[in-house]
Amino acid sequence: MIAFQPGRDIKVDSARIHQLLSEIKSDTMGGWYDLPATMSEPQGIAELDSIKSAAAQIQSDSEFLVCIGIGGSYLGHRAVIEALQPLSSTRILYAGNHLSTREYQRLFDTIGDADFSVNVISKSGTTTEPAVAFRLFKEKLQSKYGDAAAKHIYATTDAERGALHDEAVAEGYTRFVVPDNIGGRYSVLTAVGLLPLAVAGVDIEGLLSGAFAERQSVLDARSDAIDKHPIAQYATMRADLLHEDYDVEILATFEPYLQYFTEWWKQLFGESEGKAKQGIFPASVTYTTDLHSLGQYLQDGRRNIFETVLKIEHPTADEISVPKLSAGLDGLAYLEGKTLDYLNQTALEATVAAHREGGIPVSVITVPRLHERSLGALIYFFELACALSAKLSGVNPFDQPGVEAYKRNMFHLLGKPGF
Amino acid sequence: MIAFQPGRDIKVDSARIHQLLSEIKSDTMGGWYDLPATMSEPQGIAELDSIKSAAAQIQSDSEFLVCIGIGGSYLGHRAVIEALQPLSSTRILYAGNHLSTREYQRLFDTIGDADFSVNVISKSGTTTEPAVAFRLFKEKLQSKYGDAAAKHIYATTDAERGALHDEAVAEGYTRFVVPDNIGGRYSVLTAVGLLPLAVAGVDIEGLLSGAFAERQSVLDARSDAIDKHPIAQYATMRADLLHEDYDVEILATFEPYLQYFTEWWKQLFGESEGKAKQGIFPASVTYTTDLHSLGQYLQDGRRNIFETVLKIEHPTADEISVPKLSAGLDGLAYLEGKTLDYLNQTALEATVAAHREGGIPVSVITVPRLHERSLGALIYFFELACALSAKLSGVNPFDQPGVEAYKRNMFHLLGKPGF
Repeated sequence: MIAFQPGRDIKVDSARIHQLLSEIKSDTMGGWYDLPATMSEPQGIAELDSIKSAAAQIQSDSEFLVCIGIGGSYLGHRAVIEALQPLSSTRILYAGNHLSTREYQRLFDTIGDADFSVNVISKSGTTTEPAVAFRLFKEKLQSKYGDAAAKHIYATTDAERGALHDEAVAEGYTRFVVPDNIGGRYSVLTAVGLLPLAVAGVDIEGLLSGAFAERQSVLDARSDAIDKHPIAQYATMRADLLHEDYDVEILATFEPYLQYFTEWWKQLFGESEGKAKQGIFPASVTYTTDLHSLGQYLQDGRRNIFETVLKIEHPTADEISVPKLSAGLDGLAYLEGKTLDYLNQTALEATVAAHREGGIPVSVITVPRLHERSLGALIYFFELACALSAKLSGVNPFDQPGVEAYKRNMFHLLGKPGF
Repeated sequence: MIAFQPGRDIKVDSARIHQLLSEIKSDTMGGWYDLPATMSEPQGIAELDSIKSAAAQIQSDSEFLVCIGIGGSYLGHRAVIEALQPLSSTRILYAGNHLSTREYQRLFDTIGDADFSVNVISKSGTTTEPAVAFRLFKEKLQSKYGDAAAKHIYATTDAERGALHDEAVAEGYTRFVVPDNIGGRYSVLTAVGLLPLAVAGVDIEGLLSGAFAERQSVLDARSDAIDKHPIAQYATMRADLLHEDYDVEILATFEPYLQYFTEWWKQLFGESEGKAKQGIFPASVTYTTDLHSLGQYLQDGRRNIFETVLKIEHPTADEISVPKLSAGLDGLAYLEGKTLDYLNQTALEATVAAHREGGIPVSVITVPRLHERSLGALIYFFELACALSAKLSGVNPFDQPGVEAYKRNMFHLLGKPGF
């Protein structure tokens, strides 16, 4: 389903890939590797049912669902919702991912007197930003619904322990589980992402079936020719390029609604690889707008950059064409009748050619159409490529020691007891 | 007004800065250097009057103003509008900055049957994205207003020549001028930015007066101690760091509404410096959300990065505090009564300290409050620092040969006559 055209010649070390895939599968944080399969087993089906039933409840009693989370508890579901723009009677809002007074005022203004529910997503419950947001919205729920406030709170958290778990049990919130063997940035296909997605109207089974198909293609390749698999090729190419001191990767898309998908990608790769004074710095551009801003740098700037273009072959079923106008003073007659999609694909080809001429290794990842299945496949594609790529470069893809430094400094400056 | 705390020791070469300032002032593309002063002379005042009068007309007859432009004809005014969120009866929409069918459908849906006007902003009128957008909206204006369509079109373009200029003269659009001596990325304080800003409700005189004050501070420093001026220090530090192979700069803000300001900054610096296989790659982060995504890389990743934090000392007059709740199961009692602004500033201090511990040169640019005057000063600060910094590294800050490579490939692939 996903095609990969590498930006340079590569030679995949099949034996090494086989070994690393086994390591990933058996890692204590490798739960996401088989997740698409486990979600179609009885326990997974039961979980999906309870997610869908909670989503139906929220859709029936809430105009807004405020999703409280940051980092891996936030980016994945937002990426999917922005990319697919599904229809739902309940609109998703995001909180707990910043500390900006003006943004909270805007959120409060948006909700006004409308009915709303909260999905608080936090493994521990103690991260400052979501914990503060949860207090703010809990107060609003209590003043609006009184004793029934707890019925509007859905907690996605640790199965057995932690501040949020304990509060959820004591107060009787509906609970969903952040698995122990899946880190935040790999968690979009767990309840962390699936509850908000279901409320937003995304076909979550379609998403999972896309991830399942992509995983299956890896299993098939393992018994056949893993060196031909796009995931093995992309991961190998990245590790090779880093080894040659290419230390910035640009993920480029040509559709503005994929911007949050690139944000999700940046966290996935940056947090997995950026450690031990190593790693590729992940950046993103949205074309064609950024061809008229960062385009100059990419064409002619420092050559420590490689670019990965995410191509949607058929962006829309609908068509908008350049109209024919009587007075053709704008010199645009040669484009009359051409569709925007055609122009956008031409821009993609022109960009790939220009940047290659400029000396940048440009790869292209292609999916035919954008929908739940292909997006689920893309998520799995990048998760596995990221884990492989990190391991090829000798770093652990599943820890994030550096994030703790900020949290510790923050707790210390805020005077948290014990810090 | 603007304070700069450098991320490392620097020694400004005053004689060199004086010489480069003179070069910039007399450059054929250096018109922005004295612009804040010329806008308070009779011709500038007359131009401001005609901008304000057009803005009043648009506010009185249009629910939406569609601003058609890309790159430097787009980013500056959007950055200011998103940062200040002024109140206006007319809402600004953006087109011509992409080729996405879905985005255009969304724009058409938003406008519906409402009254609207168009401000098409293009020096030449032939850049593909805005030219196509202008056709799409011209067709809508003609079918809505018939012969009166031209009264809803405002063209900001070359004073004397070009496809858009000629069409504007022939059709009788209200015209504004893109000066010959100011490039797109330095043009936000010309009619390019000022007309959309005035329609959006921004105090454009306040913006210009802030730029004027910042320019005056440079003039004062020239007769006194230019090596103490924040602009000379920031420019020197950047050139020094690039010389030592720091080739990624991160501009960090702690307020989501500054995201487009960082996009404007990325174009300004990337397009000015990214040439001759040189230049600092400009990236941006919005904290605290990105502390939970790119934070790991910044803390522990490759050390080719330096960071510039844009600090607003007093983000809001309003206050939101962490409420006291009866059941304190979340362990957040130590934060009760603290304001979000306080938490956000603490996060800023914690981040600066953590990243410095991680070995990143972190600078802080501080303004007391965010309003028209301080934003105008910041625009001038970055424009001049960028020009100086590029010149210190030996590149011309005012050309963009690489953008042409994409445009040529695009015209060729689209079959434009002559390409």
